[in-house]
Amino acid sequence: MLTRVHHINFIVEDLEDGIRRFQAILGRPPERTDTLAARGAITATFQLGETALVLVQPTRADSTPGRHLAEHGEGFFLLSLETDDLAAEASRIDASGVVGMAMTEPRHGIKNWRVMDLQSDDTWGAQLQLVQEGD
Amino acid sequence: MLTRVHHINFIVEDLEDGIRRFQAILGRPPERTDTLAARGAITATFQLGETALVLVQPTRADSTPGRHLAEHGEGFFLLSLETDDLAAEASRIDASGVVGMAMTEPRHGIKNWRVMDLQSDDTWGAQLQLVQEGD
Repeated sequence: MLTRVHHINFIVEDLEDGIRRFQAILGRPPERTDTLAARGAITATFQLGETALVLVQPTRADSTPGRHLAEHGEGFFLLSLETDDLAAEASRIDASGVVGMAMTEPRHGIKNWRVMDLQSDDTWGAQLQLVQEGD
Repeated sequence: MLTRVHHINFIVEDLEDGIRRFQAILGRPPERTDTLAARGAITATFQLGETALVLVQPTRADSTPGRHLAEHGEGFFLLSLETDDLAAEASRIDASGVVGMAMTEPRHGIKNWRVMDLQSDDTWGAQLQLVQEGD
């Protein structure tokens, strides 16, 4: 089953500027910053309740975040929904015939998270994904 | 203080089609549907953990959701952050000098929620808001 909104990502051109703005909104600095070399991004994470708000600055134009920035500009980028059984939920969604998965095998995010993206064409261009945290 | 991601809104052209897609992702129907005449929208709400995922179909082109649809198309629309003290948090954010509020008095959402929007120009065009639930 799906259990919570795990994280929400925003694409920004300038991570430091983004941190300054989110810090003004949330009233505190981010819990962590990360460099995701394989994903082509640097990130800052603000935890709010059970959900993380993540600012993502692309570091390469040819990365997924870099392409999103070029096509859509800054702003909302991705909604990640936590599951307790990634393979089962991905299969269930694919079997719906309404919304499809964009990948057949998980990729790895920060902190050993395993993630699978949905077909964004099936959700109005909004990038949704499933995530299961590692042990 | 801010306590959780209260709801996330998506703009859709066709609420029935949107419900079909979200039902495929979440594996269950929406908890509720609402008609917001003053806001110019009909909505469907799927609760996921402590956050509601809300599909919003504009019913008038001259409403806020209608203008968003015309300008940005379907997809992510709004991120609503819950606070336990709406006036205090709005004042704190305005005083930051980095991000401003778009209104000085709250407006009413569904279920007696009081909401105040932030200046979306200060958050890359992403519409953020504060919300406090009524008694």
